[in-house]
Amino acid sequence: MKIKDIGGEFALIEQLTQITSMDHADLIVGPGDDAAVIRTAPAPAPYLLVTTDILVEESHFKRKWATPEQIGTKAAECNISDIAAMGGTPAWMFISLVLTKDIDVQWVQSVYRGVNASCKRHGVIVAGGDTSLGTVNTINIALLGFVQAHELCLRSHAQAGDLLMVTGPLGASAAGLALLNADKKPCPYLLQKHLAPTCRLEASRVIAPLANAMIDISDGLGSEVHHICRQSNTGARIDAALIPLHDDVKTAADSLEIESLDFALRGGEDFELLFSIAPGKVAQLKQTGLACHPVGRIVELGEGLKLVRADGSTTPLPGGFNHFSNAPDFQSAAGSSAPGSAGPTPG
Amino acid sequence: MKIKDIGGEFALIEQLTQITSMDHADLIVGPGDDAAVIRTAPAPAPYLLVTTDILVEESHFKRKWATPEQIGTKAAECNISDIAAMGGTPAWMFISLVLTKDIDVQWVQSVYRGVNASCKRHGVIVAGGDTSLGTVNTINIALLGFVQAHELCLRSHAQAGDLLMVTGPLGASAAGLALLNADKKPCPYLLQKHLAPTCRLEASRVIAPLANAMIDISDGLGSEVHHICRQSNTGARIDAALIPLHDDVKTAADSLEIESLDFALRGGEDFELLFSIAPGKVAQLKQTGLACHPVGRIVELGEGLKLVRADGSTTPLPGGFNHFSNAPDFQSAAGSSAPGSAGPTPG
Repeated sequence: MKIKDIGGEFALIEQLTQITSMDHADLIVGPGDDAAVIRTAPAPAPYLLVTTDILVEESHFKRKWATPEQIGTKAAECNISDIAAMGGTPAWMFISLVLTKDIDVQWVQSVYRGVNASCKRHGVIVAGGDTSLGTVNTINIALLGFVQAHELCLRSHAQAGDLLMVTGPLGASAAGLALLNADKKPCPYLLQKHLAPTCRLEASRVIAPLANAMIDISDGLGSEVHHICRQSNTGARIDAALIPLHDDVKTAADSLEIESLDFALRGGEDFELLFSIAPGKVAQLKQTGLACHPVGRIVELGEGLKLVRADGSTTPLPGGFNHFSNAPDFQSAAGSSAPGSAGPTPG
Repeated sequence: MKIKDIGGEFALIEQLTQITSMDHADLIVGPGDDAAVIRTAPAPAPYLLVTTDILVEESHFKRKWATPEQIGTKAAECNISDIAAMGGTPAWMFISLVLTKDIDVQWVQSVYRGVNASCKRHGVIVAGGDTSLGTVNTINIALLGFVQAHELCLRSHAQAGDLLMVTGPLGASAAGLALLNADKKPCPYLLQKHLAPTCRLEASRVIAPLANAMIDISDGLGSEVHHICRQSNTGARIDAALIPLHDDVKTAADSLEIESLDFALRGGEDFELLFSIAPGKVAQLKQTGLACHPVGRIVELGEGLKLVRADGSTTPLPGGFNHFSNAPDFQSAAGSSAPGSAGPTPG
């Protein structure tokens, strides 16, 4: 059924609003007015966090690969991941949709169901949005959250001597994408990691009080280490042998004749967290029981950004995915040419 | 110069960030981290307002008609207008861009300059955003603002007996668009009103303490009256003879053989304010010196929504523009097939 068949824009908005409808004492006015009205006095925390991410069909998702629920989940999770990376708690979501006129209403509803499932899991309320007609299906999410001052983890807060740790194995999303792009069937683990990744909000609640800098891994470990170092005025030393890789990533790399490490370093969308922590706080982190993997450490700026290979040789740490500049031709690699996407096929 | 020529995404973001850079004591972290960090305790007002609007090339703007500065201005103003319509003060803006890989960097910068000019005029700070590669240039803006409890003007707050008033002449944007679509050259007034409309934030500051319901006119007067009445459970009576029309709108209507009133009732993007006010407060409004035009009144639900014609006859009030359902074929009328756009050529 097309949007015009159900009565147009306002009927669609009404249907979508029902999917995400949740009451909250602080939501004075939800969808349906010129703006949402949210009570923020007294404030739940001294700082408001705001992030926004835009996902474009063919660039960030493909209907031939992903179910609408997966697309919705990914859109929600990549935003929630940004709030997690700040040490915050996500709260209020706003969804802008560009829809083609021939899109199936069921598809749109299912995207919303995917968004809603993530929101419910993470305690987020969908409080508004916008719908518009266009020629490319596009989802923009703006997400608000809150953070306590002592839990705020900025990219700029790393200090020489800090350990760099990640919350889980890397490269699975990029490996899944590379297989899809090569017309090979990824195993369920890689497929899930690429099409419907989940963010590490619960881990961030544990890490935030202990970490210095934190960032989520959306553009590859290499890129994220570069971000932290540039903003903290430090260098870093990453130990290749320590980077956690799932066996399925190694298998995928073998089948594609790509170095598996590249999926972790230059891939993207793992949505694991990378954080720097003072050595003196590592014992406390271990006591929480949260599984984290050291991958290197923050060093003085003058020492640069180095990758220490298994054989002891060092190379400059690759910078990860910077789209526009190194994106392959859009037509030939649509799935890899946008931020938050896995980037050019590594190798 | 293309985006890849300047070094890609991060170089572009740096250039754009410089254009909008403004310090503010409450902006703890601006663009460049996973999320913006804004101090909200103590809160500037008890209620936070959030609105989001997405503008798509060919649907909401055309590069052949509008300068990039105008496109940026329109994107900013239509969001600021939503905050104004709530009686609020806009504060923090977040811009998501989808850009084609062959887009000129100068064009993007000029869009940002247009956004920035509006933001400066209205005291808004650009605090973050996202850029992405795609096949259709798209601008999503999320805007945060604040409102005092006694100035909050909801669509649902109209009461039978209220006067309905508008802040200025209507139909100019729709008339400008209709002329452009007909390959006729609009006069400067209509062109400006369509391509770079300005919102009525200052007027809203005057009206908010006095009005009951308020809404901005983005989809035509008819549609907005319907919104207010549906949410307030009232009817309305609009007096056609009272609807203010600029002479240029009448001239355009004559040249297109369209009834000029249709531009006001069924057009869009005027971004004037429509509000309902108790008769007892009209004298106070007049004392402020703000020019406002009564166009009708709120009546009991049972009386329905009526348009009283100049000859005394009444007809149902047209509902304005509901895209998807009554949008003409996208290819033949791209400029009129999206929300916030002028809707199908009236007539």
